[in-house]
Amino acid sequence: MVEGIETAHGSLDLEGLVKEKPIAACVISSTLTSTIPNISLAGEISIATLFTPALDVEYVFHGKPMSIDIIPTTPSGIPTPALITRVALQLSGIPFIAVDSGSYIEPRIPFIALPSRRVGGKINEEEALPRGTSRKLFLEAKSLGKVLGSLSRVVMVGESMPGGTTTALSILRALGIGDYNSTSSSSNINPVDMKKKVVERALERARGVSDPFEINDIAGDPLHISVAGMAVGILSANSYAILAGGTQMLAALALMKSSGESFNEERVAIATTRWVYEDRGEEMVKIVKRISPGSSILYINLNFSDSPFEGLRAFEKGFVKEGVGAGGASMLAISRGVSMEGLKASIYKEYESLIERK
Amino acid sequence: MVEGIETAHGSLDLEGLVKEKPIAACVISSTLTSTIPNISLAGEISIATLFTPALDVEYVFHGKPMSIDIIPTTPSGIPTPALITRVALQLSGIPFIAVDSGSYIEPRIPFIALPSRRVGGKINEEEALPRGTSRKLFLEAKSLGKVLGSLSRVVMVGESMPGGTTTALSILRALGIGDYNSTSSSSNINPVDMKKKVVERALERARGVSDPFEINDIAGDPLHISVAGMAVGILSANSYAILAGGTQMLAALALMKSSGESFNEERVAIATTRWVYEDRGEEMVKIVKRISPGSSILYINLNFSDSPFEGLRAFEKGFVKEGVGAGGASMLAISRGVSMEGLKASIYKEYESLIERK
Repeated sequence: MVEGIETAHGSLDLEGLVKEKPIAACVISSTLTSTIPNISLAGEISIATLFTPALDVEYVFHGKPMSIDIIPTTPSGIPTPALITRVALQLSGIPFIAVDSGSYIEPRIPFIALPSRRVGGKINEEEALPRGTSRKLFLEAKSLGKVLGSLSRVVMVGESMPGGTTTALSILRALGIGDYNSTSSSSNINPVDMKKKVVERALERARGVSDPFEINDIAGDPLHISVAGMAVGILSANSYAILAGGTQMLAALALMKSSGESFNEERVAIATTRWVYEDRGEEMVKIVKRISPGSSILYINLNFSDSPFEGLRAFEKGFVKEGVGAGGASMLAISRGVSMEGLKASIYKEYESLIERK
Repeated sequence: MVEGIETAHGSLDLEGLVKEKPIAACVISSTLTSTIPNISLAGEISIATLFTPALDVEYVFHGKPMSIDIIPTTPSGIPTPALITRVALQLSGIPFIAVDSGSYIEPRIPFIALPSRRVGGKINEEEALPRGTSRKLFLEAKSLGKVLGSLSRVVMVGESMPGGTTTALSILRALGIGDYNSTSSSSNINPVDMKKKVVERALERARGVSDPFEINDIAGDPLHISVAGMAVGILSANSYAILAGGTQMLAALALMKSSGESFNEERVAIATTRWVYEDRGEEMVKIVKRISPGSSILYINLNFSDSPFEGLRAFEKGFVKEGVGAGGASMLAISRGVSMEGLKASIYKEYESLIERK
């Protein structure tokens, strides 16, 4: 493994795989769960979280948000992790494509639409999706994954969905995996009690249900089931699926395993950041060992403590941590010959130009 | 050139290019122009033409239409050209992706959506698109083409839009190219007088306008401008753009040339069928020589006269001729080692299984 890419579990060698150009995909969705006050950091006003996924992929694709002309940082200057993704993919020339499985607004870039896409419900008080939707999304995403897997040997699947660590927790718990500390948070203070309350309400409705698609209709969201379907499709084309995200990808992996589809575990890796790994790495390894022991967990050793910008140093205090495939995209870039120093310098430069636009 | 692929103009050698796996894309749109009685063969009832593009790409992707459970043939048993496309891509393992630039209904398969997609107006009585839309579609399609071009050295762009030979004629005439006999028809009797009447009404509104995007807003449709944008994007990634279609692709090429974008003409080929070539080949060569002399025109020497099925022999009587990238897909398959006999046998078999479902 090249410098900067650390293996927490498993044996997948990313560098050896990316001689051919990989594809970076990012699935976007909304769940109204993100509008529950204090659940998500991804928007200052909770309703704003519904716009974040489209703005994120617009930013990665074009270098600026298109739907609304805003600077993709919090008022205190903490940037979206899409900044890292954008810089990493630009430096390495890796093509990027957004996949909409239920974004509240459509992104203003060409994107792949899943026919059954729809915004997820607020899981503390309503069904996540109309019955049958999860199976449809899974199959649609699987057929898409097959196409992407036939185009490239390595396909990264990132995600952007505020509220996602909460619905991921709900999915994991409903499948009987992990505990209430299993998922991380984009905030420096993980609102675990808050999430637990929301998830418990969802689990009440899912009690006695064992079918993973039904569980997801009741207590999940449109995103993780779509990531799972895409990954299964990619693997069915004999390619490698890089699940680029933090603890949410445990939910995707759990859905893959419980879907009834068989796949080569060793061709799957969760690729994340050191920030997530330091927060929940132990729990992640434990869960992967249990549900898909052949799969790998990798993390990128990005460190912003030497950044001149407070907004980036905030990552070292536990803010943001991951998202929009930031960790996976960084790894792909490094594997394709970008140096860690070069990556960091470009991220700092991009951040500087962002805040100068303010 | 391998047996079966004929060059009508130019020097592009498809076989030498497709050592790497190509991508087959198909742009779909609707124009209300297709609902003018007797303009299009693509649906028996004129309103049905609005559903054809989605059904076509569903059929190519899944082997059956998904939105409505119908057999993709006319009541007299003449199949959609998507049959040829489906068989050719399946035999050669070439990935297929649909691009929606304005289909009346969304296809029930994963598809790429252009943000500014919309159904085109009836050009004999209204604007084709709201002002500014054509430029947006072109730029969106260009950014998509760049992604596809970075994924593969050869990208085919097909089309499905009933009414397309009429709006293509309108675009060509408005750009001062060709005459009223420049475009072919999916019918054995080309309703030239009918089309001329429609186009003349559109041209009245476009009089004095020279900007190609404005012309297209007034008198064109959402499809050809999107095909043009995709092709320019593919070429900007130093890949080859195969415009898979008949005389409609002249309109796309004309829009590319008048867009103000520069590109390598020699990396562009119109790829069509013998049926189109025998109908309008001379006109096609004349127009390509004038607007983009470095580009090629290729056609596939498919001949269904030995078919045991009347529905397929109808192609030899001038019905259908082309569509959904049938000619280009056949060429890609042949270039990738599929034999002409094998291709035909599989088409006949697929047709047989289609009509047996009836």
